Amino acid sequence: MHSGTEVPLPRRMTRAVDVGAVTIGGGNSIVVQSMTNTDTRDASSTSHQINRLAEAGAELVRVAVPDMEAAETLRQLCSESSVPLVADIHFDHRLALAAISAGVSKVRINPGNIGSQSRVREVAAAAAGADIPIRVGVNAGSLPHDIREKYGVSARGMVETALRETQALTRAGFSSVVLSLKASDVPTTIAANQLMSGRADHPLHLGITEAGAEWRGTIKSSVGIGYLLGQGIGDTIRVSLTGDPVQEVRAAWEILSAWNLRRRGPNIVSCPTCGRCTVDLPAIVREVERGLSACTIPLTVAVMGCEVNGPGEAREADVGLACGRGVGLLMREGEVVDRVNENEMVQALLALVWAYGERKE
Amino acid sequence: MHSGTEVPLPRRMTRAVDVGAVTIGGGNSIVVQSMTNTDTRDASSTSHQINRLAEAGAELVRVAVPDMEAAETLRQLCSESSVPLVADIHFDHRLALAAISAGVSKVRINPGNIGSQSRVREVAAAAAGADIPIRVGVNAGSLPHDIREKYGVSARGMVETALRETQALTRAGFSSVVLSLKASDVPTTIAANQLMSGRADHPLHLGITEAGAEWRGTIKSSVGIGYLLGQGIGDTIRVSLTGDPVQEVRAAWEILSAWNLRRRGPNIVSCPTCGRCTVDLPAIVREVERGLSACTIPLTVAVMGCEVNGPGEAREADVGLACGRGVGLLMREGEVVDRVNENEMVQALLALVWAYGERKE
Repeated sequence: MHSGTEVPLPRRMTRAVDVGAVTIGGGNSIVVQSMTNTDTRDASSTSHQINRLAEAGAELVRVAVPDMEAAETLRQLCSESSVPLVADIHFDHRLALAAISAGVSKVRINPGNIGSQSRVREVAAAAAGADIPIRVGVNAGSLPHDIREKYGVSARGMVETALRETQALTRAGFSSVVLSLKASDVPTTIAANQLMSGRADHPLHLGITEAGAEWRGTIKSSVGIGYLLGQGIGDTIRVSLTGDPVQEVRAAWEILSAWNLRRRGPNIVSCPTCGRCTVDLPAIVREVERGLSACTIPLTVAVMGCEVNGPGEAREADVGLACGRGVGLLMREGEVVDRVNENEMVQALLALVWAYGERKE
Repeated sequence: MHSGTEVPLPRRMTRAVDVGAVTIGGGNSIVVQSMTNTDTRDASSTSHQINRLAEAGAELVRVAVPDMEAAETLRQLCSESSVPLVADIHFDHRLALAAISAGVSKVRINPGNIGSQSRVREVAAAAAGADIPIRVGVNAGSLPHDIREKYGVSARGMVETALRETQALTRAGFSSVVLSLKASDVPTTIAANQLMSGRADHPLHLGITEAGAEWRGTIKSSVGIGYLLGQGIGDTIRVSLTGDPVQEVRAAWEILSAWNLRRRGPNIVSCPTCGRCTVDLPAIVREVERGLSACTIPLTVAVMGCEVNGPGEAREADVGLACGRGVGLLMREGEVVDRVNENEMVQALLALVWAYGERKE
């Protein structure tokens, strides 16, 4: 329904952190991000994938930096990217220093796995000098040994790890920190972020880690990220899928859209069809989805297969089609505007959508 | 992680309602249901689809009953079905009477759209005589005119409609009622069910109506149904998708599994891959998923692409594989049990899963 959300979503207030031209936290729009899965040292494939992600709606893109050659490739990637890049670094603080000097807009690195406090200070000083934030990314699969001994692999253990990592940066005089606490288990991820949001005001990056292949990973992420968003928690989201990361971006937008938090393109509602349906609705919906795939107008389009719920839902949508026997009723903002033959109804609906979009602009 | 949920999910207590051998509410397991989209009068196709749904894990199946011929077909469908059937009826109370006498285990009908209170009494008496419940299904797209005037198409309007419908049955001496309040808008559906669960103790059937085609509908349903389950609300769930209803059943199970509420088959966790990954992980995961598609053992299997998070996550799973350069580490309950060559690792993992399952049985 275009009447929009009825559940108040009071956002937990966090400090604002700038990542290039994008701001995470501080009540700003929830930022959609993703990560490349190309070999970072292959500048051409990586740049191509970054641009595909940006086109799909990624507002930040993270790249893995496993070695110095990858770190050096970042300079070219940054210059070719339309969105800020984030360097993902483990173990070796020199990679962080190289990535920062290559021009990335954020570094993800855990103080706990780069060794001494003097190395932490070096990275913090470089990040402060470049005016970029650091994300501390706690993953349930790699908690420090002593924390695992004390708390087990648990939400509490994840929060204690996040606090320890953040304090290491604070001691180095650095506070522009984004936090993530991810587990592959959805309830553990939710509990960790709920606990964390009561303990610090750093913006939270949400995700279910190792969520699995596309279908299963999308469901886990929708449940986990969706639940936290409904609790007002989360400043940036990343859906993790084993597969093409463009699907991560599409899923992230759809999760935000389900909560009416943000929308990219039309919301197409359509009925599941049942014994009352006399048209091939899945085929009609696919045709409508194809026809609107390039559409970025945030409106609700209803495509309904019968006379029971059809006219009612179509009435609540911005633009709607209710299919009867051989005819389609076209509706705009609750009014029937036309009645057309079955073979013309998809084209007529698409025309109505584009005209509606133009009128709104 | 096999350590399971850390978020307490205190279920809102509801009255128990029996649907054949299945019980909805009263703290019982959340029931998975779906609906056929064949022509109900075509007994052979409908029976075939019912059985496909049951095999996929549907514990109840609903069929639309648009006319008397469909109602009469129910007798054969009931005799051929391994799960209880629910008749979905609109407008004509005689269809409800015929469906009940044909042997269905539940009827979905709204008193408000079958006319006089004497007809409501007739249906209630027949349902009571057959010892079956009635589902009142409120759909935001078809609220009564006066309620729409007063409350708009809103969560409040949906709840007022549900209360009015339930009271009509109460006045007819009938109380074995399951309620559903569905909108295509996720926050409206959530708000309606939250409100409703504070107003009555009828078991709640959750779903997002007209959720759309498979991909988008799965995300909306995961967010909406997932959120309510996380709040302890919901006794039976139906994912509505425009497409093959078997996908509805698979998605419903996956949502329950994400919350660790119920599980059907293995939970496969796998990383999104990144620049550190040196194997074709999506292909490996697909091979593992294929190899385990007939597996109903509820265990966690980790398939990880690198040495950073891989061993940690694989350690937390029941059975895990962490792929390095040319080799795979096989893990069982946190212990490395084998190190095999890349070309043998999937078969070795599958063997480990089956052996693990046998040991657990």
